[in-house]
Amino acid sequence: MVNEKFYALGTNRLYIRELAEYGMARAAQIGRENVFDFSIGNPSVPAPAAVNEAIVDIVSMLPAAAVHSYTPAGGGADARRAVAADLNERFDCGARPENLFFTCGAAPAVATALAALGVAEGECVIVAPFFPEYTVYAEAAGMKSVIVPPVTSDFQLHASAVEAWLTPRTQAVLINSPNNPSGVVYSAERIRALGELLERKGKEYGHPIYLVADEPYRELVYDGLSVPFVPLLVRNSIVCYSYSKSLSLPGERLGYLYIPDAMEDSEAVYAAVAGAARAAGHVCAPSLMQHMIARCASVRPDLEVYDRNRRLLYEALCSYGYECVPPQGAFYLLIRSPRGSAREFSDRAKARDVLIVPCDDFGCPGYLRLGTCVSTDTVKRALPIFRELIEEK
Amino acid sequence: MVNEKFYALGTNRLYIRELAEYGMARAAQIGRENVFDFSIGNPSVPAPAAVNEAIVDIVSMLPAAAVHSYTPAGGGADARRAVAADLNERFDCGARPENLFFTCGAAPAVATALAALGVAEGECVIVAPFFPEYTVYAEAAGMKSVIVPPVTSDFQLHASAVEAWLTPRTQAVLINSPNNPSGVVYSAERIRALGELLERKGKEYGHPIYLVADEPYRELVYDGLSVPFVPLLVRNSIVCYSYSKSLSLPGERLGYLYIPDAMEDSEAVYAAVAGAARAAGHVCAPSLMQHMIARCASVRPDLEVYDRNRRLLYEALCSYGYECVPPQGAFYLLIRSPRGSAREFSDRAKARDVLIVPCDDFGCPGYLRLGTCVSTDTVKRALPIFRELIEEK
Repeated sequence: MVNEKFYALGTNRLYIRELAEYGMARAAQIGRENVFDFSIGNPSVPAPAAVNEAIVDIVSMLPAAAVHSYTPAGGGADARRAVAADLNERFDCGARPENLFFTCGAAPAVATALAALGVAEGECVIVAPFFPEYTVYAEAAGMKSVIVPPVTSDFQLHASAVEAWLTPRTQAVLINSPNNPSGVVYSAERIRALGELLERKGKEYGHPIYLVADEPYRELVYDGLSVPFVPLLVRNSIVCYSYSKSLSLPGERLGYLYIPDAMEDSEAVYAAVAGAARAAGHVCAPSLMQHMIARCASVRPDLEVYDRNRRLLYEALCSYGYECVPPQGAFYLLIRSPRGSAREFSDRAKARDVLIVPCDDFGCPGYLRLGTCVSTDTVKRALPIFRELIEEK
Repeated sequence: MVNEKFYALGTNRLYIRELAEYGMARAAQIGRENVFDFSIGNPSVPAPAAVNEAIVDIVSMLPAAAVHSYTPAGGGADARRAVAADLNERFDCGARPENLFFTCGAAPAVATALAALGVAEGECVIVAPFFPEYTVYAEAAGMKSVIVPPVTSDFQLHASAVEAWLTPRTQAVLINSPNNPSGVVYSAERIRALGELLERKGKEYGHPIYLVADEPYRELVYDGLSVPFVPLLVRNSIVCYSYSKSLSLPGERLGYLYIPDAMEDSEAVYAAVAGAARAAGHVCAPSLMQHMIARCASVRPDLEVYDRNRRLLYEALCSYGYECVPPQGAFYLLIRSPRGSAREFSDRAKARDVLIVPCDDFGCPGYLRLGTCVSTDTVKRALPIFRELIEEK
């Protein structure tokens, strides 16, 4: 007599988690250096020194009560001010501290945004490829997940592809850029076109369609590219952010929602976000990490290793004959299965102790994801195996 | 077009929060020392030095990647082992690390437990007085909240009082001991009697009734009293715990669920907990705090100030003629309104800059809660005002 839906969620795990656990078990058997684990999405670069220095300084110098106290549910004043100031400096977006709601990472930020927007019979349009948990969050919000298949010619955001899936029941469109698993960064032009579509269809349907932009990989871009700031391009947009990847703090659970003033019903959306978070037992984001970000809001990641691995893998795999999506951001490289289904190719690689993720769960069958957040040595030693895998009968 | 239920939750706040904000605003006007704020439930004693030392040591000495990485959703191996060992040492309860599921505090632990047990038409029986958010969590779990009124003669747990509210739809009974707001510690005898009732009614209804024990105040007891460990007395019980009060870390969001092997469908309940947490966007509890608790699982709070304040307030208020519930644990003293409704008396006290919480939201109308987690100086200087409040016409 337990909740069946949650029981199923707790037992039917994603294949990616199985693969990661297999990798750990296999490493224990044959040695970590002999397992080429590209399955993970864990930052391999340590947190910037400034982050750890700030943590030590805060714990050593501030009164314990000040460090570890409850903050307001949406975040402490200092953390919100610092992040709003950083956003304004970078994007001149008119962010106020009151537009931010800190959460325990981007995952609850997305879950909370969808819960806040979830109305009876509502639909959440999810643009593939996508992080597999999105469908879990949409369902938990009482919404139907509507998947827009990926445009595999360029893996960009195509408003025309999204349009076909909008209905009067559409409450939200959920995008993720820089994209996991494709590594593609959606362009300003494409995001603006989507915004125009949503504005037009919103008018037609008589209610706003909100764009939820999940941006944990915002700071991870290469070749001098910049990630457009969605609220400057799309009026009704909510940004979900996390410091998991940008500051290599995935375990610390610090993220936020940014709910701009300009959006329709901004105050109501913010209130619904606060209410949805409250109902899930959110009290505040971890306070020590809030104090840290009040000092480190403008610290940026060191991308050197990810960039080097990205180039190495992309160039080598292309030269072997793999069809690769040019990676612009995040720390992933998406390849097309050269033979059989993605799962079949993943299994063949696994037999050679190379772990790569079939992307069926990401709404992207036939493709596999390689994490570039590994050591460069791992990349180099795995390259001959990738060559053999595509050459063997 | 936002979710109405969550919008309401985000806008209709608890009176206790309003009172706390009034206190802060008033302190800014007339000086903090002139506001006698007994409304709060924030530890006034700082986190033990061992906790801050462990944090600094972990951040300074361990590789950043190890400190800040994702842990498994239920918690890192070291943290779970340490807490299971501490539970076994204290209660000889056969805890295994696999029985623990770490959460971002007790609030999501309770919310997750109820979500996991929430079935269609299910009911959650909540024993008053209770933490007001319980009804929010029960509703979010799709369950009807059924309130057992308090037994004001002793504020103890009375199985006979609970029995009247059980139905075949009862999925869970939720208790809180040491109790917020009464300060009463439920006795082993009373808990065992409730367990026997639930066992008997569960057999009658053909499904288990789970006892959910919310225990953030477990370590805060006085006069040498000990808090019975519920799973030793009640087979089908889930413990929800938090380090917010015991280690004065309310902002850091570290807590856990303990789901004993002995309970019926233990594995299914654990899986449903994992699934419910996942659906809410839980990824893991903050990793640095997990590393800390791996070292500090047996650190206990310094209760001296709370104990001193408790004695001072209880003895003085009784001598003035207040009807006080003898406080055994937590950091609260419950008094009966000497005149008019609790809200009316709270308003009269507020006019004298003494902030005390009317307990209507706690299922306990006619009573008010005083936090003893304040400075002893605040207590001493407030006593004459309490005397005047009960003596004035």
